[in-house]
Amino acid sequence: MARDWMHWNNNATVDLPIDRMMIGQVRTRSSDSYVPDSASTATAYSCGIKVYNGAIGIDDDVEPCGTVLEAAKAQGYKTGLVATSRITHATPASYVAHVYDRDLESNIALQEIGVGHPLGSVVDVIMGGGRCFFTPQNTTGSCRDDDIDALELARQRGYTVFGDRATFEEDVKLPYLGLFTQDHMSYDIDRDPAVEPSLTEMALKGINDLYKATKKSKKGFFIMVEASRIDHAGHANDATGHLHDILEYNRAMDAMREWIDEHDDSETVLISTADHECGGLTLGYELDGAPDYWFAPEHFASSHGSSGKYATLWKNYKSNDTSDATQYLKKSIYAPYGIMDPSEEEITQGLALQSSTSNFGRFLALAFSKRLKVHWATGGHTGVDVTLYGHGLNHEKLAGQRDNTEIAHFAAEQLGLDLEPITEKLRADREFVEKLVKKQPGDAARLKGRDLTHHHH
Amino acid sequence: MARDWMHWNNNATVDLPIDRMMIGQVRTRSSDSYVPDSASTATAYSCGIKVYNGAIGIDDDVEPCGTVLEAAKAQGYKTGLVATSRITHATPASYVAHVYDRDLESNIALQEIGVGHPLGSVVDVIMGGGRCFFTPQNTTGSCRDDDIDALELARQRGYTVFGDRATFEEDVKLPYLGLFTQDHMSYDIDRDPAVEPSLTEMALKGINDLYKATKKSKKGFFIMVEASRIDHAGHANDATGHLHDILEYNRAMDAMREWIDEHDDSETVLISTADHECGGLTLGYELDGAPDYWFAPEHFASSHGSSGKYATLWKNYKSNDTSDATQYLKKSIYAPYGIMDPSEEEITQGLALQSSTSNFGRFLALAFSKRLKVHWATGGHTGVDVTLYGHGLNHEKLAGQRDNTEIAHFAAEQLGLDLEPITEKLRADREFVEKLVKKQPGDAARLKGRDLTHHHH
Ligand SMILES: [Zn+2]
Ligand SMILES: [Zn+2]
Repeated sequence: MARDWMHWNNNATVDLPIDRMMIGQVRTRSSDSYVPDSASTATAYSCGIKVYNGAIGIDDDVEPCGTVLEAAKAQGYKTGLVATSRITHATPASYVAHVYDRDLESNIALQEIGVGHPLGSVVDVIMGGGRCFFTPQNTTGSCRDDDIDALELARQRGYTVFGDRATFEEDVKLPYLGLFTQDHMSYDIDRDPAVEPSLTEMALKGINDLYKATKKSKKGFFIMVEASRIDHAGHANDATGHLHDILEYNRAMDAMREWIDEHDDSETVLISTADHECGGLTLGYELDGAPDYWFAPEHFASSHGSSGKYATLWKNYKSNDTSDATQYLKKSIYAPYGIMDPSEEEITQGLALQSSTSNFGRFLALAFSKRLKVHWATGGHTGVDVTLYGHGLNHEKLAGQRDNTEIAHFAAEQLGLDLEPITEKLRADREFVEKLVKKQPGDAARLKGRDLTHHHH
Repeated sequence: MARDWMHWNNNATVDLPIDRMMIGQVRTRSSDSYVPDSASTATAYSCGIKVYNGAIGIDDDVEPCGTVLEAAKAQGYKTGLVATSRITHATPASYVAHVYDRDLESNIALQEIGVGHPLGSVVDVIMGGGRCFFTPQNTTGSCRDDDIDALELARQRGYTVFGDRATFEEDVKLPYLGLFTQDHMSYDIDRDPAVEPSLTEMALKGINDLYKATKKSKKGFFIMVEASRIDHAGHANDATGHLHDILEYNRAMDAMREWIDEHDDSETVLISTADHECGGLTLGYELDGAPDYWFAPEHFASSHGSSGKYATLWKNYKSNDTSDATQYLKKSIYAPYGIMDPSEEEITQGLALQSSTSNFGRFLALAFSKRLKVHWATGGHTGVDVTLYGHGLNHEKLAGQRDNTEIAHFAAEQLGLDLEPITEKLRADREFVEKLVKKQPGDAARLKGRDLTHHHH
C-alpha cells in the first residue's frame, strides 16, 4: 500500500527504502496459537523461545529468560530501547522485563529502569511514550496503581530524565530516560514536531549516543527500535494512520542504513521485521460478490490525520443544531479525513455514533478504506508471515524463511552473546521470580476492566 | 495456512519444502491497475514488460513481444509448458501466444501449436487441461466457435497427441501435446490418479524428457510449470481445494529441487513465484467486531474434497422429500467437506441454494472457512506482494524485492537470450499482427456472455 502510494504520488515506479533491504520472511506463531500477540513474538525476538500470547520475557513455565539486551549489557555493550508506543508496551518490555502478563505495566516500568531487576539497570538509552506508568497514582494523568515515583527512582539510579523537545536536542548524559507523552506517542501524521521527536530522530539520537559512548570500547551497542503504532493503526483499520507510520518507518530504516554505510568501522548490522501482521490489509475490494481489481491510492492525498484524531474532534464538538452538526461533520471531519462525498447513510451514521470515539473511529476508517479499495480482515492480528529486512555486517546470513526465534539467535551470535548465564542469574533470584514475574494474589483485581483487545496488541 | 496445517498434522514444527527455497518477494502491479490479472503478470514474466490486465504476450500498443520461451527455442533450446488449468489459460498462453484479450482461447490454442504463429511450433512439451479448445465445434464438449480440428493440425506439425494415463507413462516422442481433461484439470484433492497425472508427475516427465532430448546439445531447456488451480480455489474461497493444491505445488517444488541436486551437470536454475495473490486469505477471524487470535487447521482433517465437487454433487441430488434432502445435505455434503455441526440456518440456506453451484459452493466454502477461522477478503485478486523461491545455478542473483518484469530479464540473462530479435520478427509479420493479435470485427459477439470474473483469473 505504501509503495503504491509512492508510485502514485511520484508518478513513477519508485521503491520503498525498505525494498532495497528485503532479505526474507518470518513466521510468527506463538506456543499457544497460530495467531500471535506482541508479547509472545517480542519474547521470541529477545529470548529466542516460543511462549504463550501475553507473556513478557519468560518461558511457558513462567520462569524468566535472559534476553539479548540483558546479555549484551552483561558482556560490556551499551544498550537502548526506542518505541513510539508506551515504553512499557509488550515489545520494548520483552527485552528487559519479565512478567506473566503484559498488562502489568506498572511492574514493567520499574523493571525497565532496574528496580527489583536481578541485573539492576541494563538499559542506557530509553525513549518513547508512556510517562503515565512512571508517575505516582493521584498525580495528573498517572496510570499507576501505587504511590511509587518511578521517575525519581530512575534519577536515583543515575538516569537523566526528560520529556521535552529542547532537552532531546541537547547532548544528554547516559543513561537517560526520555518520555515524551503520557500514553503512546502520536501517529506520525498527527504529531506536533515541536513537542514530540519523530521515530527517525529518536533512532538516530539513540544510535549516535550509543556509538559515541562505546567508541573507545572493544564492545559496541545493541538497540531495539520499534515503529510501534503501525500496529495500532492496523487495529483501528485506519489506512491513513497506517500509511504515514509506515512511511516514517521507511525514513527511519533509510537513515539507519545510511548511518551504517557512513560508519564502516562500527561493524553494525541492522535487522528489521514485524512481530506479526495486524489488520489483514489487502488491496482490492469486493462489494456484493463483485471483486474490483482496483486500488485507489489517490484518496490519501486528501487525508490529513488519523481516524482517531477526527473521532476525538467529533466527540468534542458541541451543538444542539442538527444542521450545524451535519455541516461540521462534513467540513471538519469527513473532508479532512479524505471523504469528500459522504452518502446520506454515512451522515446519519456519523451523527448517531458521535459519542463513541471507537465506534465512530472505525466507521470513519472503514468508509475511507472502501474508497481506497483497501480491505481489512480484522481489528486484530493475523497469522500470516511478515517480511524480513537486513543491512550491514553479515545480514545475508539471516536471509530466507525464518522462525521468529531465529532472530534472537542471530543477534546473540553476531554479538557473541551467551543467554544461558543470564537466564540462570534471573532464575536464581527467587524473590524476584515469585514476587514480580509470577501471578500475585491482587492481580486479578488489578487487571480487571482492562480492555481485552488491548491485551492482544 | 499450509505450513500450519503441516505443523498440526505432524505435531511438529516442520517446514514446507518451499520454505527452504524462499529468496524474495515480487510486486505484481500491471500497467493499468495496482491489482493485476494473470495475463498481465504472465506477460511480465514471459516478455519482461508491463501491460494492461487481460493482455497476452503483447505491449500496451497491442504489438506482440518476444517471450523467453520463444527466444529459447530460436536459440536452440528445447521448451515446455505444463499447467493444471486449460493450457490455453492466461499463464501458459502468455509464453507463446500473442492476443489482445485472454478470453480468445480458440485463437490461443492454434498459436500454441504454431498455427499462424510467425515462428511456427515453438513448444516441444505441452501438458495440461483444456482439450475443449482443440476440438471442432459441434463435437462433444468442444469450446471452439469454428470447425477447426486443432488436434489434427498439431499432428500435422509433428506433435504426438495424447490424453490418457497409459500413454503418459510411456516414452512419448517429442514434440508432444498431452491434454488430460476437456476443461481445467481437477483440484488435486478431487483428482482420479487413474485418469489425470499430478502436477509433480507432469513436471518431472516434462523435465526428464527435455533433459534427455538436449543431453547431446550445448543448449539445454526452458520449461514453465504452473500450479494453476491454487488461484481457482482462491476465487472460490475454498480453503480445502486451496490447501491441497498448495501441498501438491510443494511436492512438485521439492521434486524439482531434488532433480536439480541430482543433475549437477545440467546447470539448471529453478525460479518459482505466483503471478499475483488471490482471495486475500488471512488466518484469524473477526466476528461481530471481536477479533479471535486463533486458526484451527484441525478441521482440514475432516475435509475430503473441493467445495466445487460437493456443490455439483448437491445440485445433482434429486428428492422431493425435505427430510431426505436434509439428511443427504448433512451426511453427504456438509460432513465430508468438514462441517460436522451445521446450524439450522446453514441447513435452510443449503436447501435454498441447491440449484446454483456457484452460490452454494461459496456459501459452503465460507461456512467451513469460518470454522477454520480463515478470512477471505475477496473472490478476486489482491495487489499484495507474492513470495519468490529459487534453487540451483545463480538463483541467489535474483534474491530480494523484485518487480515482476525482472523475472523475465533474469531468465533471459541465465539462458543468454535476446528477446529483441524475436519481438522484431513477430511484429514484421503484419498479417499475423492484424488478424490474430489485434481486435477483430467479430470479437465483440465472440466474447459476449463470457463471465467477467472469469476474465480476471
Ligand atoms: Zn497489535
Ligand atoms: Zn485468478
